[in-house]
Amino acid sequence: MSGAGTTASRIAARYRSGAHDGPEPASSPVIDLALQHRSVREFLPTPVADGELESIVAAAQSASQSSNLQVWSIVAVRDRDRLQRLSATIGGRPYVANAPLFLAFVADFHRAAALARAHGAEVGTTGCIENTLVAFADAGIAAQNALLAAESLGLGGVFVGSLRNDIPGVVAELGLPRYVFPIFGLSIGRPDPAENAGVKPRLPMAAVLHHEQYDPEAWRAPVAEYEERLADYFAEHGKDDYSWTRTIVTRIGSVAGLHGREVMRERLREQGLDSD
Amino acid sequence: MSGAGTTASRIAARYRSGAHDGPEPASSPVIDLALQHRSVREFLPTPVADGELESIVAAAQSASQSSNLQVWSIVAVRDRDRLQRLSATIGGRPYVANAPLFLAFVADFHRAAALARAHGAEVGTTGCIENTLVAFADAGIAAQNALLAAESLGLGGVFVGSLRNDIPGVVAELGLPRYVFPIFGLSIGRPDPAENAGVKPRLPMAAVLHHEQYDPEAWRAPVAEYEERLADYFAEHGKDDYSWTRTIVTRIGSVAGLHGREVMRERLREQGLDSD
Repeated sequence: MSGAGTTASRIAARYRSGAHDGPEPASSPVIDLALQHRSVREFLPTPVADGELESIVAAAQSASQSSNLQVWSIVAVRDRDRLQRLSATIGGRPYVANAPLFLAFVADFHRAAALARAHGAEVGTTGCIENTLVAFADAGIAAQNALLAAESLGLGGVFVGSLRNDIPGVVAELGLPRYVFPIFGLSIGRPDPAENAGVKPRLPMAAVLHHEQYDPEAWRAPVAEYEERLADYFAEHGKDDYSWTRTIVTRIGSVAGLHGREVMRERLREQGLDSD
Repeated sequence: MSGAGTTASRIAARYRSGAHDGPEPASSPVIDLALQHRSVREFLPTPVADGELESIVAAAQSASQSSNLQVWSIVAVRDRDRLQRLSATIGGRPYVANAPLFLAFVADFHRAAALARAHGAEVGTTGCIENTLVAFADAGIAAQNALLAAESLGLGGVFVGSLRNDIPGVVAELGLPRYVFPIFGLSIGRPDPAENAGVKPRLPMAAVLHHEQYDPEAWRAPVAEYEERLADYFAEHGKDDYSWTRTIVTRIGSVAGLHGREVMRERLREQGLDSD
């Protein structure tokens, strides 16, 4: 599962930091697997077996859930025509069109609302942003268990945030009722070994991990280092002009950087999750 | 790491379903660990070592992140006085007050906004709900890697959604600047073997996993089964009158079920994440 190398060398590879210079890191096969994660966007055509799907979903459901509410669901798609249409709907994503298995994670208050109504109760809080946020956080928690479970079986995958590129289109294709909303997808399959991708470096830990209180200046030096490390990574993978700073400035700077997702609040409202 | 039993028996235990009746599930030590997850709220006083924290945070950062934006951070708290105050602020949580290590996961657009400003750009999209949702989903993805990494080392933990019970109090205690917002905490430590808790059953998979399209009636039979299984679980752990239906109806029915969190939108606004 883990391949060659020590946990310290895997941490150094993750941050592209040269020799590891923190405390001697604690080690386990799970940690080694997590450190080696990369997104897989090119798959062999081998199907994902039912017994693999079973364990992947059981792992997802086993993760913690806020107050045990269980306000997310999965729509598993394997039909090739549907995957082609889904891909086209969200702007053309070959790693959706060609995925042996696609798991659409959706915020799901339909189940809870139907249960409340069946007991003669009101449906009073589906419009509160607290509930929307819980569904997004809990889906993230569950989906990471799913992906790590898949990776532990030799499968690979990629999160598909572009599932939010066309909410009405996805709602129609997956038949989502009121109170159900697409969060992200997860494409899963056996990695094509020919794919040109590696372990993408992350911001140095000093930018992300604060101690006791948040340090507003902690980002400066690490972000400057990171800009170079990430540009090097992309250059090695055939992309010469990458800048993390430019990516961030574009996204944070103006709504053009949201590529149409500035309408998300209205889309949530249309599904009954007003997020007030 | 895995203890006795097969993956099939662990799946049956997770759903409290008697004999496992799906396809023969795929197996790995990671899947077995995920299936055995339980929230740990009672800790031995043993500290979490720096090398453990290092690997836990490296695992968290290694998880997928939307467009590699990296819009979350962690504030690690170990100071006993601060943990006591944090616990008091959010309504009294012994598993925060007594946690050897507490990781506050926060949505972090401060780093991105500061970077944009340093490059003479506007800060135009921190108010869009799309960005808030990305931060919550990505923090969930990262935090589950952190918790599973901790569990693989023999540690245990619990998500602390009540970190959102008093946003201004938490903002002050952790020194969070504008554009930074508490998502949840993660209390981590060595499990006290005396704690009376087990593997909490989840909704039958048939309620959560849809195929090709969402089935609006899929919840009915599984939820009725689940009501009994979960009541049995709680009865075994000293809580005689538990009803999942009542929990859901209370939460979905009226804002009283949100226990004060109906103000979340206003709190987001105060931190500059308007979520429009």
